[in-house]
Amino acid sequence: MTFTETLAAAWHRNNSLLCIGLDPDPMKFPAHLQGRPDAILEFCKTIVDATADLACAFKPQIAYFAAQRAEGQLEDLIAHIHERHPGIPVILDAKRGDIGSTAEQYAVEAFRRFRADAVTVNPYMGRDSVEPWLAYADKGVILLCRTSNPGGSDLQFLDTGGEKLFERVARLVATEWNTTGQCGLVVGATFPAEIARVRGIVGELPLLVPGIGAQGGDVEATVKAGRSGNGTGLMINSSRAILYASSSEDYAAAARRVAQETRDRVNRYR
Amino acid sequence: MTFTETLAAAWHRNNSLLCIGLDPDPMKFPAHLQGRPDAILEFCKTIVDATADLACAFKPQIAYFAAQRAEGQLEDLIAHIHERHPGIPVILDAKRGDIGSTAEQYAVEAFRRFRADAVTVNPYMGRDSVEPWLAYADKGVILLCRTSNPGGSDLQFLDTGGEKLFERVARLVATEWNTTGQCGLVVGATFPAEIARVRGIVGELPLLVPGIGAQGGDVEATVKAGRSGNGTGLMINSSRAILYASSSEDYAAAARRVAQETRDRVNRYR
Repeated sequence: MTFTETLAAAWHRNNSLLCIGLDPDPMKFPAHLQGRPDAILEFCKTIVDATADLACAFKPQIAYFAAQRAEGQLEDLIAHIHERHPGIPVILDAKRGDIGSTAEQYAVEAFRRFRADAVTVNPYMGRDSVEPWLAYADKGVILLCRTSNPGGSDLQFLDTGGEKLFERVARLVATEWNTTGQCGLVVGATFPAEIARVRGIVGELPLLVPGIGAQGGDVEATVKAGRSGNGTGLMINSSRAILYASSSEDYAAAARRVAQETRDRVNRYR
Repeated sequence: MTFTETLAAAWHRNNSLLCIGLDPDPMKFPAHLQGRPDAILEFCKTIVDATADLACAFKPQIAYFAAQRAEGQLEDLIAHIHERHPGIPVILDAKRGDIGSTAEQYAVEAFRRFRADAVTVNPYMGRDSVEPWLAYADKGVILLCRTSNPGGSDLQFLDTGGEKLFERVARLVATEWNTTGQCGLVVGATFPAEIARVRGIVGELPLLVPGIGAQGGDVEATVKAGRSGNGTGLMINSSRAILYASSSEDYAAAARRVAQETRDRVNRYR
């Protein structure tokens, strides 16, 4: 199955548009995990096992692993998800972007080494920087379009001859780069009107939407702006609000509770 | 010393604007290194030791290490450069770019874990995605501006109200983001006229220029377009042409010969 097919199946099977971001920050872990050499893996596995039936995808953010020299734990985590929760795709949030020969190496990192099902990629270097990723026909490539941070507007909001840069990116991806049906886009939840603009440009393309939860995006506005024709089309990401719902030993149950609430709140507006 | 000061000292001490890119591809290594578990480290150390007096910087490309599970060898390589060749800055070519809290983790990866002196960063997510890097006052932050690949034009060449996107990036960095003097820009050698445009916008800002050597950029045009007032201001990168000058056991001597020729050819036009 391709990433897009796996994702569509997960949307339906778990009745969920919720993507759970895995941004493990050891300083926020419960006390009983502190100091354990495999704390990151244990923490993330516990979160994953507590929430896998509520999610349409898991999204580990590689920076949190790399900062802790924990690439090995990331490999083990993704292997665990594939083995224990088959059918839930793993999106490696890496936001890579480089020339073709280097992009090939990054694709080896993401798809062969870490065995991710999809990866986030930065579009600034253009089409040939994206093609090495697309050479993996069963994988997904989710391009940054409109990001949820304040500085996102610095470049993405520039007028490029009648459309803003992020609209141009959406149109380029939808009409020229996505020849194989592998692409998606990142569109931040802090800007529902812009999610609607992107949805209008890209048809049914899957959108990865960070920015609800800790970043404060509005769920109702996000879902109504971004849903596709059949009420799917979205991977609405929440990371910190779920991972750190409790800082005690009950963190798995607390994470499950918040994940369930979030999934259900999203479903109210599909 | 800050990155900018270290770089300026290296320009003068080694009379060189040559940055040597370390893109280790084990398939291209000499036969006697094939299959050794530390082949990447040994290959790169040998290149570094053979060329350190000819270079103004070394630029390891992290994708080549990550694809081979060789982060430990990258740590050891950078430690080796700092120890054996103090005063030659190490630029970690990672082209990272993410929101503030994640950028903080990437900065830990680049500056604390790998101990790089500077890093390449993608500007697409805007100013607040760059600030966590700038919090390391002695480090350099080199932002992608005009890249040397064919698809570089897809976004970077868009007209954003009288100036192209890459010119806007150059102006933003020079006039707004570089408040601390830590920034540089990546401008590909395949476009000398655009190097000249960027130099005109950014004053004395250091420019990292990939694209000579294997990518075919013209050295004379590049140097004349990009040099600063005192004949420095450039880190002209060559990777494959130096690393793989010979595929035999004489690869260190061959690398040194090409590095010296390249440095001297550059110096002819300063």
